[in-house]
Amino acid sequence: MQEGQGDCWVLEESDRSWKPGPPTQSERKDPQYHSMAGKKVLIVYAHQEPRSFNGTLKNVAVDELRRQGCVVAVSDLYAMDFEPRATRNDITGALSNPELFNYGVEVYEAYKKRSLASDITEEQKKVQEADLVIFQFPLYWFSVPAVLKGWMDRVLCQGFAFDIPEFYDAGFLKDKLALLSLTTGGTAEMYSKAGVSGDFRYFLWPLQHGALHFCGFKVLAAQISFAPEIASEEERKGMVAAWAQRLKTIWKEEPISCTPPWYFGQ
Amino acid sequence: MQEGQGDCWVLEESDRSWKPGPPTQSERKDPQYHSMAGKKVLIVYAHQEPRSFNGTLKNVAVDELRRQGCVVAVSDLYAMDFEPRATRNDITGALSNPELFNYGVEVYEAYKKRSLASDITEEQKKVQEADLVIFQFPLYWFSVPAVLKGWMDRVLCQGFAFDIPEFYDAGFLKDKLALLSLTTGGTAEMYSKAGVSGDFRYFLWPLQHGALHFCGFKVLAAQISFAPEIASEEERKGMVAAWAQRLKTIWKEEPISCTPPWYFGQ
Repeated sequence: MQEGQGDCWVLEESDRSWKPGPPTQSERKDPQYHSMAGKKVLIVYAHQEPRSFNGTLKNVAVDELRRQGCVVAVSDLYAMDFEPRATRNDITGALSNPELFNYGVEVYEAYKKRSLASDITEEQKKVQEADLVIFQFPLYWFSVPAVLKGWMDRVLCQGFAFDIPEFYDAGFLKDKLALLSLTTGGTAEMYSKAGVSGDFRYFLWPLQHGALHFCGFKVLAAQISFAPEIASEEERKGMVAAWAQRLKTIWKEEPISCTPPWYFGQ
Repeated sequence: MQEGQGDCWVLEESDRSWKPGPPTQSERKDPQYHSMAGKKVLIVYAHQEPRSFNGTLKNVAVDELRRQGCVVAVSDLYAMDFEPRATRNDITGALSNPELFNYGVEVYEAYKKRSLASDITEEQKKVQEADLVIFQFPLYWFSVPAVLKGWMDRVLCQGFAFDIPEFYDAGFLKDKLALLSLTTGGTAEMYSKAGVSGDFRYFLWPLQHGALHFCGFKVLAAQISFAPEIASEEERKGMVAAWAQRLKTIWKEEPISCTPPWYFGQ
């Protein structure tokens, strides 16, 4: 199957037992709870269908994080018709070398001259303000859907997210957290070391290390909801509840180590 | 650096010593040479600038393969303004479930009913005819640029490229070869086991195994031109020449083993 395609499953409204109420008295007394208030979260969301399982996971995160007092912004890439292609249109005004178009160089220059296209700068502002960026998407070909790849290609440009040699631990986004929340078409068994698709950590490497860590992000463990399409309604509810539950203590989590042993070790 | 961005380097026309002439007498006598004639090759090319280093590598491949008597088609994705986003527009006519849009299911149904958007079916025809598909691109974030990711997301759909359980070795494209030819921003040293970006095989896994092998393709070793931007003119010429030389015997090559030991073993 194409991974994560056809992951549209909805919870009945009546099943939304995870739907959060106001904070409980004990939560209010928790010092950790108060430290969350005012934290800013950006959710970059890539699914075509609001009523999909991905849509539900996104909604759960918005609800839970707002309940904590966080300020939450959502970039709904399909709804925005977000442009994925990296082209000359990303630079307003003149190019530094129109004879030989070099996207990376031109975008770097445009960032410094504040002449990037407004759809890029608007996303950069959201990232700049965020303490945590959550990416919510179905796995397409062991990676993000093209619309989200385009967000990474265009928004995380040199000058904004990194420079030379300010990358990896020195990347400009080093005071921020990032988290991939994804659904798969294949089962957890398929994504094990002995499975046909190999350990799930293998496909996380380019996204978590190559893109996010390169920009300095501290990466929290991925939230992987395996094969919601072939799961039972009960199992799907369990996956949604697990995500909501995890978010309650998300600010206490330690980032993973984005190094080869974590991904490929024994 | 953003990998592969700014890889625009041209060879002077006078430097194009690799430019192939007609086959030599000894080549004409080579039985292998004759077996190449009539082979069909599709080059899926993703660079904005025709005069870039990627453009040169693409041109070299077109010239050399045509010289062998191959029929070569090029999908120049930026020039085509190829659509990367996977949306409802990919299905012409009615949806099977308009209440809850499921891209994977709808595209699978549309493939069977021949109601996919024409830009998808045109690419599928080219793939169907090809004996070898070469992907020529600069590495963006340890992966393909979004425009090429969109080509993979949309063209390699269920029904056309695979079905359940016809995937991996049983994928529908199993009689075809695929080859990734890519440029990087980082050096070969950075992409070694001890380097900051890890072994280059790590980032190849999702593309070669997760996408190409999943569809059945036999995968030839990737052609990686490391860091052309910071290489000398002499080194860049060497990389172009190495690619042209390799293509002379490309049809004799054995595919790699798309298994975890090849990628992550000692």
